[in-house]
Amino acid sequence: MSESKRQIKLGAFLQSVGHHLAAWRHPEVNPEDVTSLEHLKNLAKIAEQGKFDAIFFADGLGWPQAAPHLLAKGAPAYYWEPLTVLSVLSQVTEKIGLISTISTSYLAPFHLARLFASLDHISHGRTGWNLVTSGTDFEAKNFNLTEQNKHTERYLRAREYVDVVKGLWDSFDDDAYLFDQTSGNFFDASKLHYLNHQGEFYSVAGPLQSARPVQGYPVIVQAGSSEDGRHLAAETAEVVFTAQQTLEGAQAFYQDIKARAAAFGRDPDSIKVMPGIMPIVAETYEQALEKFEQLQSLIDPVVGVGLLSAFLGNIDWEKYSLDDPVPDFPVTEGWQSRQQLLLDLAHAENLTIRQLYKKVAGARGHKILIGTPVQVADELEHWFNNGAADGFNILAPTFPIGLTDFVEQVIPELQRRGLFRQEYEGTTLREHLGLTRPRSQYHDAA
Amino acid sequence: MSESKRQIKLGAFLQSVGHHLAAWRHPEVNPEDVTSLEHLKNLAKIAEQGKFDAIFFADGLGWPQAAPHLLAKGAPAYYWEPLTVLSVLSQVTEKIGLISTISTSYLAPFHLARLFASLDHISHGRTGWNLVTSGTDFEAKNFNLTEQNKHTERYLRAREYVDVVKGLWDSFDDDAYLFDQTSGNFFDASKLHYLNHQGEFYSVAGPLQSARPVQGYPVIVQAGSSEDGRHLAAETAEVVFTAQQTLEGAQAFYQDIKARAAAFGRDPDSIKVMPGIMPIVAETYEQALEKFEQLQSLIDPVVGVGLLSAFLGNIDWEKYSLDDPVPDFPVTEGWQSRQQLLLDLAHAENLTIRQLYKKVAGARGHKILIGTPVQVADELEHWFNNGAADGFNILAPTFPIGLTDFVEQVIPELQRRGLFRQEYEGTTLREHLGLTRPRSQYHDAA
Repeated sequence: MSESKRQIKLGAFLQSVGHHLAAWRHPEVNPEDVTSLEHLKNLAKIAEQGKFDAIFFADGLGWPQAAPHLLAKGAPAYYWEPLTVLSVLSQVTEKIGLISTISTSYLAPFHLARLFASLDHISHGRTGWNLVTSGTDFEAKNFNLTEQNKHTERYLRAREYVDVVKGLWDSFDDDAYLFDQTSGNFFDASKLHYLNHQGEFYSVAGPLQSARPVQGYPVIVQAGSSEDGRHLAAETAEVVFTAQQTLEGAQAFYQDIKARAAAFGRDPDSIKVMPGIMPIVAETYEQALEKFEQLQSLIDPVVGVGLLSAFLGNIDWEKYSLDDPVPDFPVTEGWQSRQQLLLDLAHAENLTIRQLYKKVAGARGHKILIGTPVQVADELEHWFNNGAADGFNILAPTFPIGLTDFVEQVIPELQRRGLFRQEYEGTTLREHLGLTRPRSQYHDAA
Repeated sequence: MSESKRQIKLGAFLQSVGHHLAAWRHPEVNPEDVTSLEHLKNLAKIAEQGKFDAIFFADGLGWPQAAPHLLAKGAPAYYWEPLTVLSVLSQVTEKIGLISTISTSYLAPFHLARLFASLDHISHGRTGWNLVTSGTDFEAKNFNLTEQNKHTERYLRAREYVDVVKGLWDSFDDDAYLFDQTSGNFFDASKLHYLNHQGEFYSVAGPLQSARPVQGYPVIVQAGSSEDGRHLAAETAEVVFTAQQTLEGAQAFYQDIKARAAAFGRDPDSIKVMPGIMPIVAETYEQALEKFEQLQSLIDPVVGVGLLSAFLGNIDWEKYSLDDPVPDFPVTEGWQSRQQLLLDLAHAENLTIRQLYKKVAGARGHKILIGTPVQVADELEHWFNNGAADGFNILAPTFPIGLTDFVEQVIPELQRRGLFRQEYEGTTLREHLGLTRPRSQYHDAA
């Protein structure tokens, strides 16, 4: 393995009928696909044909309490519950990884550990957990609270949560089960471990009643880019999703994550940094640009402003015209890293409110690559070879066509360059990503 | 429909490799099936071939903190997480209902509503939720508590929980989605409802971001037979599972539930009472009895006593010999109805500890029917026709063979008598059970 050429890792970030805010209105999209399970099955199969490392679902636990007539302009983003859907998708695919976002904020770690253990067994070792903390008051209001916890506390809780979940996954040693009908011993009692965790935020006795996950632990993914988020990721994540607009910014982030991981005593190669990319691909640059402009033209201004509100919190937009410059706004307890990115962008380019939401609407802060398959592959290769990325999380602007375009046009170009696999080498997500299978925490105690 | 003969409803209660406590040690069972998803797929298909109304999973959220060498004698009962598994099973079946137990005690109602809404869409309207409250301290210890809540509070919370969950399922009216690309209105804003529930135990803003479930609400099932449990079931349940040993006891329970439902203004036929039955079937009674005795002989005494402990709480069994009479024990905050049933049984029959666990080990308090297909069908018909049951929850002693025996031998006998369907009449679980689709709570407000 160490002799072979380093290869790009690719995630297919699936969401409804497309990542572009106006995707559902595009004529190449069937808006009823938002509610179609067959649509998601089709996307998973396309991604597997493309040999993606994984499909990935974001998630959210509520809706802003905006006026219903504004919400009605957008397709519901988290129509499906991701773990039930990934369970289904595990049955129509064979190799591709299955990553879901699940927030640590309102789900007990016992439930989370159990759900992912079950999914890892169901999928024969293909799951990943994208750990997020919920960062909005409107989500908190679905869970007996009036406002979210403070940013720092959310991450302290998350850090402890990871320990609890891993401890539960280690309830049984890998070789604990005996199935011995004659002696009547189903498992070896010395290989069952009660966690008995008593921490600052959680007390959890354990054990889980299932075998250790096929992968030991499902792959742990994170997407927080704030100071707290980077710290947590460097210590515990194996894949980091990030939104980066420039090569320089991406390089700085990449270096920072790898250095922080090394400071925790980790091999920097055991944490994969994957910026999000929205590819808009066509035979010529002009055709690709036209595709993009068509999508941009379909954004309803109220949806655009609504998107900014979702990121930036409760700014009183009524005070401004769409063509006013973006006002200063405070970074809140919410989504700190994305807020800073938007603020920097607006200042650097002197953007109006309309210009900012149009920039963001495309890919919600992720980089948009518009061009021919060769141009898009060039840019990916450039980032990959210059210390900015170990791979990319691909946000197709529309589904299924935007994903099919990438699979049929860009992936073959990457394969020709020897930058991406022709076939899956392994069967688990860890194997796809080149991550080792973690030993149980009880292994050395034996 | 009203002209046709009233028919028996049947649930296939699936659990690991069999309901008998020693099932995994039986030579006809492959103990590795405990960890096999293919095994569960096979069971679901067998049940659908038998035209069962539904498959059903019980659930539990922990293990007693018994000595590991005692736990090692039993197969882990809740190896799989039921909602991920039912998502998979929805894909290998087409008609059969999919019922899962989920406790209200430690899962936020927003999560539960979302999971079941997703599963109801995934399965095109085949889900049911068996509402339980968690009744053990060892489960509480997995969720930041040191002991369970009081029995009465658990049921008060559950009552409010049902309202929250139904309210979330009603977030969108049935005809809310427009998919109108031209106007840019994805849905009709007047058909979205924020719950804004503020109750004694829960405050939940809503909405869910998904269409109303196919069935309006997944079918609500309950299994609590205590005073609190019956009260809750009579008000909110559509199916009631129960453990009954005698015709008279079953009749009394049936009458009580129907009368309580009527007192809530409900049609007594809108709540189906389904006692659990473990059928042990063979060509002759003697062969069936031999099958049963073989299973009984495989029970390890430590497992038998462990089972009693799970039901009855922390009695100091060391003080007694297995052949002592069952001691008096107090009914605790735990599983009140089942405790009372065991106590009554032990007193009525003057049982020793060994005799009691042997009685219970078979079907954990459910009735065991041993005999030929005709004898078993006779007994089911007798209960069904004499006000003791609307149907039965079938607990096969072993899987898959115990289930196959029932499907191949008893169901054809019931069909010959016109007591059970030859083919599914509808496509949703509600249709199978003859339950109407509930209107949204906002329907009359429109």
